Amino acid sequence: MEEYSVIGKRIPRVDGRVKVTGEARYAADYSMPGMLWCKMLRSPYPHARIVSIDTSRAEKLPGVKGVLTGKDFNGWTWGWMPKTRDEPPLAVDKVRYLAEAVAAVAAIDEDTAEEATELIKVEYEELPGVFDPEEAMKEGAPRVHDYVKNNLSWDFHMDFGDVDKGFGEADLVREDRFETGRVITGYLEPPAAVALWDSGGITIWAAKQSPYFVYRHLAACFNLPLNKVRIIQPFIGAGFGGTKNDSLAGDFCSVLFSKRTGRPVKFVYNMHEVLMTCRRRHNMIIHNKMGMKKDGIITAMQSKVIADGGAYTAIGPLTMYLTGSISTLPYKLPHFRHDAYRIFTNNPIGAAMRGHGVTHTRFAAEIQMEMMAEELGIDPIEVRLKNAITAPYETINKVTVHTCGLKEGLKTLSENPKWKKRSGGSPPEGPLSHGVGISGTAYLGGARQRGHQSCGAVVRLCEDGTIDYLTGATDCGQGSDTVLVQIVAEELGLGVEDVDIKRVDTAVTPCDAGSYGSRVTVLAGGAARNAARDVKRQLAEVAARNWEVDPGDIIFKDQRVYVKGEPEKAMPFRKLAQVACYAGSGAVIIGRGYSQYGIEELDFDKGIGNAGTSYSFTSQLTEVDVDLETGFVKCTDMVIAHDCGRPLNPINVEAQNQGGAIQGMGQAMYERFAMDLGKTLNANLADYKMPLSTDVPNIELIDIITDDPNGPYGAKEASEGSTVSSPPSVVSAIHDATGIWFKEQPVTPEKIVMALKKKRE
Amino acid sequence: MEEYSVIGKRIPRVDGRVKVTGEARYAADYSMPGMLWCKMLRSPYPHARIVSIDTSRAEKLPGVKGVLTGKDFNGWTWGWMPKTRDEPPLAVDKVRYLAEAVAAVAAIDEDTAEEATELIKVEYEELPGVFDPEEAMKEGAPRVHDYVKNNLSWDFHMDFGDVDKGFGEADLVREDRFETGRVITGYLEPPAAVALWDSGGITIWAAKQSPYFVYRHLAACFNLPLNKVRIIQPFIGAGFGGTKNDSLAGDFCSVLFSKRTGRPVKFVYNMHEVLMTCRRRHNMIIHNKMGMKKDGIITAMQSKVIADGGAYTAIGPLTMYLTGSISTLPYKLPHFRHDAYRIFTNNPIGAAMRGHGVTHTRFAAEIQMEMMAEELGIDPIEVRLKNAITAPYETINKVTVHTCGLKEGLKTLSENPKWKKRSGGSPPEGPLSHGVGISGTAYLGGARQRGHQSCGAVVRLCEDGTIDYLTGATDCGQGSDTVLVQIVAEELGLGVEDVDIKRVDTAVTPCDAGSYGSRVTVLAGGAARNAARDVKRQLAEVAARNWEVDPGDIIFKDQRVYVKGEPEKAMPFRKLAQVACYAGSGAVIIGRGYSQYGIEELDFDKGIGNAGTSYSFTSQLTEVDVDLETGFVKCTDMVIAHDCGRPLNPINVEAQNQGGAIQGMGQAMYERFAMDLGKTLNANLADYKMPLSTDVPNIELIDIITDDPNGPYGAKEASEGSTVSSPPSVVSAIHDATGIWFKEQPVTPEKIVMALKKKRE
Repeated sequence: MEEYSVIGKRIPRVDGRVKVTGEARYAADYSMPGMLWCKMLRSPYPHARIVSIDTSRAEKLPGVKGVLTGKDFNGWTWGWMPKTRDEPPLAVDKVRYLAEAVAAVAAIDEDTAEEATELIKVEYEELPGVFDPEEAMKEGAPRVHDYVKNNLSWDFHMDFGDVDKGFGEADLVREDRFETGRVITGYLEPPAAVALWDSGGITIWAAKQSPYFVYRHLAACFNLPLNKVRIIQPFIGAGFGGTKNDSLAGDFCSVLFSKRTGRPVKFVYNMHEVLMTCRRRHNMIIHNKMGMKKDGIITAMQSKVIADGGAYTAIGPLTMYLTGSISTLPYKLPHFRHDAYRIFTNNPIGAAMRGHGVTHTRFAAEIQMEMMAEELGIDPIEVRLKNAITAPYETINKVTVHTCGLKEGLKTLSENPKWKKRSGGSPPEGPLSHGVGISGTAYLGGARQRGHQSCGAVVRLCEDGTIDYLTGATDCGQGSDTVLVQIVAEELGLGVEDVDIKRVDTAVTPCDAGSYGSRVTVLAGGAARNAARDVKRQLAEVAARNWEVDPGDIIFKDQRVYVKGEPEKAMPFRKLAQVACYAGSGAVIIGRGYSQYGIEELDFDKGIGNAGTSYSFTSQLTEVDVDLETGFVKCTDMVIAHDCGRPLNPINVEAQNQGGAIQGMGQAMYERFAMDLGKTLNANLADYKMPLSTDVPNIELIDIITDDPNGPYGAKEASEGSTVSSPPSVVSAIHDATGIWFKEQPVTPEKIVMALKKKRE
Repeated sequence: MEEYSVIGKRIPRVDGRVKVTGEARYAADYSMPGMLWCKMLRSPYPHARIVSIDTSRAEKLPGVKGVLTGKDFNGWTWGWMPKTRDEPPLAVDKVRYLAEAVAAVAAIDEDTAEEATELIKVEYEELPGVFDPEEAMKEGAPRVHDYVKNNLSWDFHMDFGDVDKGFGEADLVREDRFETGRVITGYLEPPAAVALWDSGGITIWAAKQSPYFVYRHLAACFNLPLNKVRIIQPFIGAGFGGTKNDSLAGDFCSVLFSKRTGRPVKFVYNMHEVLMTCRRRHNMIIHNKMGMKKDGIITAMQSKVIADGGAYTAIGPLTMYLTGSISTLPYKLPHFRHDAYRIFTNNPIGAAMRGHGVTHTRFAAEIQMEMMAEELGIDPIEVRLKNAITAPYETINKVTVHTCGLKEGLKTLSENPKWKKRSGGSPPEGPLSHGVGISGTAYLGGARQRGHQSCGAVVRLCEDGTIDYLTGATDCGQGSDTVLVQIVAEELGLGVEDVDIKRVDTAVTPCDAGSYGSRVTVLAGGAARNAARDVKRQLAEVAARNWEVDPGDIIFKDQRVYVKGEPEKAMPFRKLAQVACYAGSGAVIIGRGYSQYGIEELDFDKGIGNAGTSYSFTSQLTEVDVDLETGFVKCTDMVIAHDCGRPLNPINVEAQNQGGAIQGMGQAMYERFAMDLGKTLNANLADYKMPLSTDVPNIELIDIITDDPNGPYGAKEASEGSTVSSPPSVVSAIHDATGIWFKEQPVTPEKIVMALKKKRE
């Protein structure tokens, strides 16, 4: 790593200070003179026809400046794809999930707005609801959308090789049903925004992780050109997909209120609204079938996924695509068939979440593979090593892998003393049992699809040698601003303190598809590097003229610039900036960079080609203590051997892997929305149990360094990988401690006690 | 002009609507939660030693959050050049002009701040002042700055050819003393700003015409890197040089208060403060000597300029340079000598103003040339045509002129029926006399010096085919935003409605030297064109791939893109944007452009080389009616034949030439600060007489179209030229009506009556 000065260093976050001191302003902190507050009236039914809405009493309440209902949006709907635009800003004619927004009020303060919502009289005709996707698929089930048969929101199919042939060659074939659970993204900052409509168009200070999505939605909803829609990013209190990666009723309503009143309009969802209504991870039922030879080699796999889509499509088609498109990693699959069905129900909307789509099917495949290895008497690491791919590799559906640290990671874990502490699925008779689990998974980085997917970067030289850096990529808490600043600093031979990254503002920062699919380091990082190199090229020309040498011989390092092999020809970077900006008529120096790449073959409908720019590989060892009387599980240790290519900021890679693994552990052990006929029963953070700091195990992180050609400095993704590796590893450990395979998340004490009881019977 | 679609059209201003509706926000309209107000305590003496300052009572006033005095800035001073940094934000030890800022208060509201200033007790020791520059130059005069002998702020000298030889060859030599008067820029929006200091550095919403000056001053004053200083431009209510082209006490104090309190801090100067203290045009005494042959050919000119610099240097060195460096235009001068002295006095500060420096010496030379022609019996237009340069031309001091419409303009005016109405200096005996005057002048456009002088532009393509355009050039009311948008639209074959120009924000818009010296159209316009061409180049590549043709054959016109000579290969621009942004992995398309030019030879100290990128030429005919009893002058008509190269927006060229001519007329006829021992006696807009709408004559504008190679589409400057042409033309007309040559501006009724009386005696 010695060739780099800034890259690879444990550099604290550039936004750490303002966040720790409380100076950082989030969307809810914004306030403007004359500002109104917007509040939503939400449906008390999960499925009902709206017979009438009477807003007259609300309108008459002093301080109320406007009331909106669904009709005010003239039938406009939005969605992730042109053909799946099915969600209205406010319900029209019928409501499809409990607490769906039905009307909105703008008033001079929050209390008045809230009070006015209670004065709106809505007459509903309750309709029979459907809450279980398997039920919803049946003929005769109530329809969530009248025009959709069998409530099929989206389906996605892959068929490579000949699975029947593959299963025919197997010595053992298993079929199992898995279920992944209903979990929420779990950010602490609720959705919030302040919207302003003036003759320049829309300006909205909104908590978004991918502001350019919202920019397109607002332009479409209000029929404005894109250059009249401006999303300004405050600091963001986490995203994780779902809600903050999309638009919301509050966005559309606050903009429309501002248009009508000429005043800025603010909304802040409360945590009850968040937990009742916001987009969450799809619950999926996975019927997985796998064939294996006696020696552990997988011969074929077939998956059938039934996902609870909730009331609208949202980003669901991408979720379905991701459940299968990289299922062919990280284990060789000669034959693979995949059928995914996203089903409308009268539940809240299923959408993207960290580990998007992959975490579900990878969980099923990992557990099933280990179950089969157990039946065949093969060690869990051994079966993984036998099937693991090695780079370079092309899967049967043309996913191309240039670097792969999976085998190295698994081998490293197999040599770890902790691995020797396994009970091997034969737990003790005593009350406390110890278990060690394993997993070996893959995830994509630099998510790519067809469309406006590239990133741009602008790097501007100030005449004192400091740098303004503009990106459209949002740091929603993952630390990407720090990594991007490191990249710009590294290229120019500067320190991170010399580079100032600007908050995203769609009017002035370059377009960027968004902070999802572990895109930022890989793609926005590539754009940043190219833009910085563009500045370097321009400065090198000035320096080369100055010293009468070749521009290619100019070196930028340690805040200095010098000629290769001629140490006397050197000057501080600052000085070169002055020379460039002040010599002759003076130069303005602006660097521009793109992350453009070709898409040779990418078939979204068939699951062919690369869904990622590169692929990370995560091997995870997990230790648990299980109380066999109470079913209580304490996760004590994790060792994560992660191949993120080259770690650009090891402290950040650690933090992201820790966070991802804990989020995965929460999903495996604690978190679930308790639902009853579409109602979230535990819509508060006391009853919806995310891991607490006291639940966090010791986590050891081992960087498996590879050097991927498709990422800046060889970097790949870090964070979503461990969200994927953690659930199977935890469940593997619980199996090791209890001898029982749990196929439904979360594995709660209740389930453990019941299963142990059943086993003893 | 048919080759252009947008250029050359009478397009209304892009910011017209928001200004007319009152939606446009100016600096004084900004307000933030927790904001403090800053007010200044000003000196009651023009020259005094500060013995002591007691701020304790002010500090104790409830609501006061801070008090600053000169010492708080630790001796920091600023100025236009490194060696002339002599002005402190607040006076230290002594005050040098009346109403100089001595202390500042920050309080919770404006009234409290004002009240607190009155509680500050300053003990002064009054010093003898010096208010006349000729007196100030004398040995033994009081010194404004102790270290400066004879109060010489700056001197500038040119000496080309051999003036003595030239005068020896002349048939007539005249020496005259001219004085140009004390006038103010006259903007209606007072200086104002809101400053915020946080850990990201300084953000200031400030009314500035050249924000990058202030950006440098604030970085230097507060020892911050430039990428931590952010000037965000509100709409600007005019500039005209002087105050809004520089930093002010209010800027520094509000920033320091914000640093100390953590709160946003606002100041708004009132009009009394503006008129008492703000930077104004230098009053200059010009001793001009000219030699002329019998046939009217000028043989030599020598000028001695004594300028009242007031208390500090400010931009004075540039003013002195401009008094001489283009005196060699627009008339051939084989021999030229120039000596300019800027003198410190205890008056308010002399600085830049529309027609900067040139308007003074051009007035003297024009009037003197016409006086001599009269003596020699030569027609005023004839003498000008005889001496006028024709392009291409290089002056004796290496000013290079590529295009010159002066002779064409003068000839056009000579054929105008109005010209025939001259009385020829022999006024009637009756009370009302009619006069017709003429002038023929030059001004620079695209002012250039050594230093960081280029402009940059960024043009961003939105995927719907609309454009975001970023420039660092400020529209302070001159309409430049509209012209720049036209340029971007023209290049891309779009309409102005497709291009959105962003307000200047030094953190994200490209660096730009400022809106002065008629730079914007010429230089920022060049950068805009280059950036738009850069986008066009990228899009042409996409189109060329699509149609398998050469990128050079792709035409952008009328919101369409097509292949030259193949009309079937065509698509809307919008569609090409979508193809580029959505095909394959999608492109981000950003265009970048600079105005860089070489400076072959430019000697600021000797006045050699081009102070401008190009030169405009203005011929002006003025008609007046003079009441010979009262001396009252009514200017009835002006005909202005202006060579601005190619008028990019004729409606804007008209408006600028009208404004410039009226401002020049005000200077010639009405405006003057009445001063008594450093005190401005008429510091209000009732007693300081700017022309009213009822004073405006009929103005006919004739565009003399040339096509300058150094400006975009051949454009040169439009506006400062007529500020220069107007005073001599008006004075020439008054002479025609009265037979008297007035050499001191303004030519008031009182002066006319006194001169007529004297003439009759």
